[in-house]
Amino acid sequence: MTETGLSTRVVPYVYEAGRLRLLDQRRLPHEETILECDSAAQTAEAIRSLAVRGAPLIGVAAAFGLCAEARRVAARSPGDLEAAREAAMTRLATARPTAVNLSAAVARMRHVVERTAARTPADRVAALEREAGAIAAEDRAACAAMARFGADWILSRAGRTPLTVLTHCNAGALATAGVGTALGVVRALAARGEVRVLADETRPFLQGARLTAWELQRDGLSVTLLPDVAAAATIASGRVDVVVVGADRIARNGDVANKVGTYGLALACRAHGVPFVVAAPTTTLDPDCPDGGAIPIEFRDADEVLTIPSPTGETIRLSPSGVSALYPAFDVTPAALVSAIVTERGVSEPPHASGLVPHLS
Amino acid sequence: MTETGLSTRVVPYVYEAGRLRLLDQRRLPHEETILECDSAAQTAEAIRSLAVRGAPLIGVAAAFGLCAEARRVAARSPGDLEAAREAAMTRLATARPTAVNLSAAVARMRHVVERTAARTPADRVAALEREAGAIAAEDRAACAAMARFGADWILSRAGRTPLTVLTHCNAGALATAGVGTALGVVRALAARGEVRVLADETRPFLQGARLTAWELQRDGLSVTLLPDVAAAATIASGRVDVVVVGADRIARNGDVANKVGTYGLALACRAHGVPFVVAAPTTTLDPDCPDGGAIPIEFRDADEVLTIPSPTGETIRLSPSGVSALYPAFDVTPAALVSAIVTERGVSEPPHASGLVPHLS
Repeated sequence: MTETGLSTRVVPYVYEAGRLRLLDQRRLPHEETILECDSAAQTAEAIRSLAVRGAPLIGVAAAFGLCAEARRVAARSPGDLEAAREAAMTRLATARPTAVNLSAAVARMRHVVERTAARTPADRVAALEREAGAIAAEDRAACAAMARFGADWILSRAGRTPLTVLTHCNAGALATAGVGTALGVVRALAARGEVRVLADETRPFLQGARLTAWELQRDGLSVTLLPDVAAAATIASGRVDVVVVGADRIARNGDVANKVGTYGLALACRAHGVPFVVAAPTTTLDPDCPDGGAIPIEFRDADEVLTIPSPTGETIRLSPSGVSALYPAFDVTPAALVSAIVTERGVSEPPHASGLVPHLS
Repeated sequence: MTETGLSTRVVPYVYEAGRLRLLDQRRLPHEETILECDSAAQTAEAIRSLAVRGAPLIGVAAAFGLCAEARRVAARSPGDLEAAREAAMTRLATARPTAVNLSAAVARMRHVVERTAARTPADRVAALEREAGAIAAEDRAACAAMARFGADWILSRAGRTPLTVLTHCNAGALATAGVGTALGVVRALAARGEVRVLADETRPFLQGARLTAWELQRDGLSVTLLPDVAAAATIASGRVDVVVVGADRIARNGDVANKVGTYGLALACRAHGVPFVVAAPTTTLDPDCPDGGAIPIEFRDADEVLTIPSPTGETIRLSPSGVSALYPAFDVTPAALVSAIVTERGVSEPPHASGLVPHLS
């Protein structure tokens, strides 16, 4: 992050010579376990099971997972390359439905496969690795740019320091190839003055309690956890200067799909005049979605609500057996409730004239 | 509950001859453990530690805890009765700050102590036990009346069956001496047609996941859990016909303090035109509080957010050590967001002319 002086000690993935090594986010903060993926199937399963998560990062992971798959197949049975690649791309693109970055990254890789059809297997692998590296580098640069744009926008409106920023889920270095989207903005603010972060614990996967707390603590930033239920009252109390979150998909009209719970935060911000900021790279924008109603919302398994994993690996049941649960993993916040959408190209405030995508491109 | 045909198999307390036996709600749903209290100190600790909880029930428990204390002291050192009673009443009344039912029940018991000053210790114990019994009987009757009034109000507005009711925390038989406040209304609705309950899990104590699920399942009612973060999106989806919650204290203007998370639900209901109903006995009304700003909000220990108890009794840490948390246990919902307040005297809709208390008394 030499572009802005921002940095992080958090390293969510390393790709080297056909092997993708992922920091297993299911085991944080208790253990820093590395999950090794040398196939598309393993990478898709890591994405599906939330070992790796965060809209920008799952795009990057899918791209490198395809590189791993291409290396593996090229070495063992180069004749099967086309069929294997096609299956791998489909499997990765559909591992999770809501974040558009995932299918967008796979589409870029598919394009490389198509335009290198005449080349040798080794050449094609090299081209795929260059493309995956470019996807990651662009995401890193986007994080740095968003951090600067977001911090500028917030500081131009906030009348006081220290600033208190409330965030939801984890939209940080653990969710991107760089310093994060929402937490990149936090890092940029912290580089310019005192910042206190209030992090929603973000049930059921506890991205806030487990990941955001770990990431900010590791980088020496101040963080206090809130039960998700306490966010509205905390916003009402006047203690929050701004809410900043990431996004998994943004529709053409500016409606934002993000981790479930985001919509409730936006309602509380609107009721109390607190700016509600979404930071997300343009890879999160989906020109094919006219509005939030067209964004597919992932429903995850009820067991992820009904149980909690213990640090020792057992599963602890929270509720009586036989009870069911409903777990939409994302919700949609209407464009009108979002004070600003920050991308690597700048800041857009609603109403987004003639749609957000043309405005930003 | 022969008054309405409503009933429950849930028995949260039994008082007999100087011994208060409480169903330990910290151990539900995994174990049905009975906590025996034969002193005010034990009862106050049971209230403070949430072994017994729910605004109406902690008033009832405190009243019987005083009876246990009076029996104990009368048997062992009748000369110390006055001093012991005074200390016991203060300890019980201050065990938790937000629910006004607690201090109101203790005030009733104090009045009995004062007006029986000239009688024998045995007579005074009997008078205290009669008063505690009356407090419980009145709460039981209030639950039955609220159930009827609440169900009438909801059915007069709901255009369809089956009805889907969303609730927060536990405002049921585990929170009262009767069929519950919000869950009493649910039971009355279920007696008249099909009702599906969506229960917020209610972090951090998980009253929804542990208690409401257990209670409704035990009584054969349909219940599905929601992560708290999913409530706003579920309300936005049109799947919720009405939200019904209890209250810990209601100010003169109709502002409602209830389990933290209630305010966010009320905002979501307002945004989507879903009725937001509060069911609470008049013992929850505080004529000394002009509005919600005057209601004391309990902040509980951060460790209750940072850890989770396992069924085997160990404490599981959710976040990295060294991270802090903020845990306001209640929040305040402004009167204007509450569609109806249901008490045992009837239903009041805002604006509550000349204050809610005179309107209802």
